[in-house]
Amino acid sequence: MAGTVEQKLNALGITLDEPNPPSANYVGFVRTGNLLFVSGQVCRTSDGKLIAKGKLGSGVTLEQGMAAARGCAINLLAQVRMALGDLDKVTRVVRLGGFVNSMPDFLEGPKVLNGASDLMVAAFGDKGRHARTTVGVAALPGDAAVEVEGVFEVA
Amino acid sequence: MAGTVEQKLNALGITLDEPNPPSANYVGFVRTGNLLFVSGQVCRTSDGKLIAKGKLGSGVTLEQGMAAARGCAINLLAQVRMALGDLDKVTRVVRLGGFVNSMPDFLEGPKVLNGASDLMVAAFGDKGRHARTTVGVAALPGDAAVEVEGVFEVA
Amino acid sequence: MAGTVEQKLNALGITLDEPNPPSANYVGFVRTGNLLFVSGQVCRTSDGKLIAKGKLGSGVTLEQGMAAARGCAINLLAQVRMALGDLDKVTRVVRLGGFVNSMPDFLEGPKVLNGASDLMVAAFGDKGRHARTTVGVAALPGDAAVEVEGVFEVA
Repeated sequence: MAGTVEQKLNALGITLDEPNPPSANYVGFVRTGNLLFVSGQVCRTSDGKLIAKGKLGSGVTLEQGMAAARGCAINLLAQVRMALGDLDKVTRVVRLGGFVNSMPDFLEGPKVLNGASDLMVAAFGDKGRHARTTVGVAALPGDAAVEVEGVFEVA
Repeated sequence: MAGTVEQKLNALGITLDEPNPPSANYVGFVRTGNLLFVSGQVCRTSDGKLIAKGKLGSGVTLEQGMAAARGCAINLLAQVRMALGDLDKVTRVVRLGGFVNSMPDFLEGPKVLNGASDLMVAAFGDKGRHARTTVGVAALPGDAAVEVEGVFEVA
Repeated sequence: MAGTVEQKLNALGITLDEPNPPSANYVGFVRTGNLLFVSGQVCRTSDGKLIAKGKLGSGVTLEQGMAAARGCAINLLAQVRMALGDLDKVTRVVRLGGFVNSMPDFLEGPKVLNGASDLMVAAFGDKGRHARTTVGVAALPGDAAVEVEGVFEVA
C-alpha cells in the first residue's frame, strides 16, 4: 500500500512510475549515510517525452517551464521511491539544484523552479522546504527545458 | 555579543543583516547532521540592490565581478549566522559552488570567485579553505553577475 | 605500493601525478565525516595542457569531449589519492557533477560525461557507479571543454 506521501501525490493525480535506468555507467541515486543523492532529472514523462523542449526566453513560456520543473520533481520522487520503497522515509528535502535551459536574457529562473519547489512542499509539507540554487544554462541534454537534481535526508 | 568570526568581519567593515526570506517554497538553508546546505545567493546588498548586474565579458569588469562574488559570500554568511546564531559554530567551509554570468568568451571565472574565497579565509582562517567549483552560465536570476552556494560543516 | 584500484589504473596506462595546488584561497578537496568533496577539475594533463579547448558543438568533437571528461576524472582521482593516500579507501563514488562547455545547440552532454563515468567504473567497479548531473554551460575556466566535480564516500 502506498504511504502517506504517495497518497497525497495520487490525490493530486500524480502516479510515480518506475524510472528508466540510466543508459550509461551511472545510476539514478546513491545513498551514503542518511543522505540520498539523486541524479539530475530532465523534464521527461515516464513514456520518454519532454514536457517542454528548448529554451526559456525563446519558444518555451514561463508556464511551460514551470510545468517542466514540476515534471523534474516528479522524476526525482520516482527515484527516491525506488531507492527507499516508501517516500514516507524521507525526513527532509535538503537541496534542489535547478538548471534552466536559458537564452542569455532570460532572468526568471527562480519562477520556473517554483514548479519543482511547490511539488516538494505539496508532497512533504514543511519537510519539503529545501535549500535551492537556480541558474540558467546554455544547453541541456536532449534540449530539455529544465533539469533538477536533489539531495534528500532519509531515515 | 558577536563571536570571534563576526568580530573579524566587523573589523573589515562588514555587518551581517538578517537575510530576506525567500519568496517561494524554499528556504535559505537546511541543516542535516553536521552539514549546512545554503541556497544559492546572488550578489545583492541587504537593501536589495545588485552589486553588479549583467555579464562578465560584456559590461561587468573583473573587479566588479570580484566585488559581486564577495557580496555573495557575505550573503552566505548571513544565512549561516541565521542558521546557527553564531558563526563560531562553523568548523569548516566545505564547498562553494560559483556561477558567473558569462559571455561565451569569458574565461576568468576563477578570478571572479576569488572574491568569495578570500572572504571565507578572512573570516575563518584555515577553516575557511574550501573545495570549489566555478562555471560560467548563460543567465542568472535578475541578471545578477554572480551567484554562489555553499556547504558548511557545523558543530 | 599502489593499492588495488591504482594498480587497475596503471594497467590502463594511467598514472596519477600529484595535483598542482590551487592558485587561490581554496583547496582541492575537503573531507567532512565520511564524505570527501573534490573541487571542480578541468581537463588539464599534469603538465598543464588542456586535453580539449573550446566548445562542444563548435570545434571540439564528441570524441575529444569524452577524452576531456576522462581527463577530468583522472584529475579527480589524483585529488582523492592525495586526500586519502590510497584509492582503496574509497567506499563509493557518490556523485559527479559535469559541466560541458557548450554551444547553445549542443545536446549530447551525457555522452561527453560518459568519459568520466566509464573511468570511475573501470577503477572501482560497482562502487564506481555514481549519481550524476550533466549540464551545458556558457564558459569554463581557461576555455576548458569539460569540468567535473565529485563527492566520494570514504572509509
